[in-house]
Amino acid sequence: MPTLSPTRRTTVTRGADRAIRERDRMLALLGDALVAHLGVVVSRDGTSHPVVLPTAFAVDPDGPDADGTLYLHGSSGAGWLRSALASDVCVTVTELDGLVAARSAFHHSMNYRSAVIIGRPRLVDDPDERARALDLIIDHMIPGRATTLRASTRKELAATAVLAVPLREASMKERAGGPVDDPEDVGGTAWAGHIPLRRVALPPVTAPDAQGEAPADVRRRVEALA
Amino acid sequence: MPTLSPTRRTTVTRGADRAIRERDRMLALLGDALVAHLGVVVSRDGTSHPVVLPTAFAVDPDGPDADGTLYLHGSSGAGWLRSALASDVCVTVTELDGLVAARSAFHHSMNYRSAVIIGRPRLVDDPDERARALDLIIDHMIPGRATTLRASTRKELAATAVLAVPLREASMKERAGGPVDDPEDVGGTAWAGHIPLRRVALPPVTAPDAQGEAPADVRRRVEALA
Repeated sequence: MPTLSPTRRTTVTRGADRAIRERDRMLALLGDALVAHLGVVVSRDGTSHPVVLPTAFAVDPDGPDADGTLYLHGSSGAGWLRSALASDVCVTVTELDGLVAARSAFHHSMNYRSAVIIGRPRLVDDPDERARALDLIIDHMIPGRATTLRASTRKELAATAVLAVPLREASMKERAGGPVDDPEDVGGTAWAGHIPLRRVALPPVTAPDAQGEAPADVRRRVEALA
Repeated sequence: MPTLSPTRRTTVTRGADRAIRERDRMLALLGDALVAHLGVVVSRDGTSHPVVLPTAFAVDPDGPDADGTLYLHGSSGAGWLRSALASDVCVTVTELDGLVAARSAFHHSMNYRSAVIIGRPRLVDDPDERARALDLIIDHMIPGRATTLRASTRKELAATAVLAVPLREASMKERAGGPVDDPEDVGGTAWAGHIPLRRVALPPVTAPDAQGEAPADVRRRVEALA
């Protein structure tokens, strides 16, 4: 099974016991999560600072970049786009799976899966790759939906920038299960355990200017998150 | 009512219609969300790149910093800590509220609330402020829990770094409701609408080395997310 190939920048230095090296588990997380957090460095007036923005995304494990491609999109006039293309970016995808209640404050924690991907983004120019990336982003939100939609117009495509980030420099951390208390705290009367968390979908809401039942793709999405 | 005070760095330049200026709504989001994404700039070997990490957090609206304080904590040996103290950081908190299915790919979207806070973090040294911040972080996960726990040991406190980020430079964006389609796409047979999403808690799981019922704080947390 292929494994992640961490460089020095993505090697987990703390909590290495949580580093899950299997690429398949990272791809599973990237499939479950709906939002990524994109970090860019903004340089202005001689100073620089990070900016982190939430964004939709999709993954093509067989994309043109080494080890696969993560796609982001945004308005071609967005301010973060120039910063993103001027230096490396960090794309972090996190799913929160639970709250961990230990006997001590120190051992309280959260259960989560998180992937950190660092790389130089590529502005996608090729029309076929752009179209495929935009379809993947739609289908990541609601699988099967892209083929049911009308074709995008030239104006819509011109207003949309697509970025590709290679999945080469990536690391993953995961925590699951109950608390790990110090031995001297165990055995008393204090309760310890964890609260599992999950994301659920409520029934779809039809737009005021639309009618009829939600189509099969939307119903399947709701059922998958029921 | 106090409003956010965006500087040039946190003024929303795209989608300003979604910029929600009321400070109370940002505080409500920071109360609902359980995970923040911390962006730091890591400089090494003459180059720099952003790193974005998921982290627990808490807010003290009446904290010692201008406009209130956001607290983060971590291992005092964590690699990101030095980077965080060497320059400004960005703390982004996002709640995903729904998937928006439009008639066109272009108008697909997500419903979300997101706060972006930029500032120079302060390492919290004062013992009282440190203790209060750590209690706030525990109580943010499970309200009321901090007072039920044994006191932290010196060793535990020494192993924990607490960072304070002022809530002064902050912006918030929010999207809610159904799709906004182009007029020429409306009126056909295509369905449009949105899928609300929410986070729910499952029943608490008692640790194998513990016994008894989950205490009232844990039960209340589960009920609040039922």
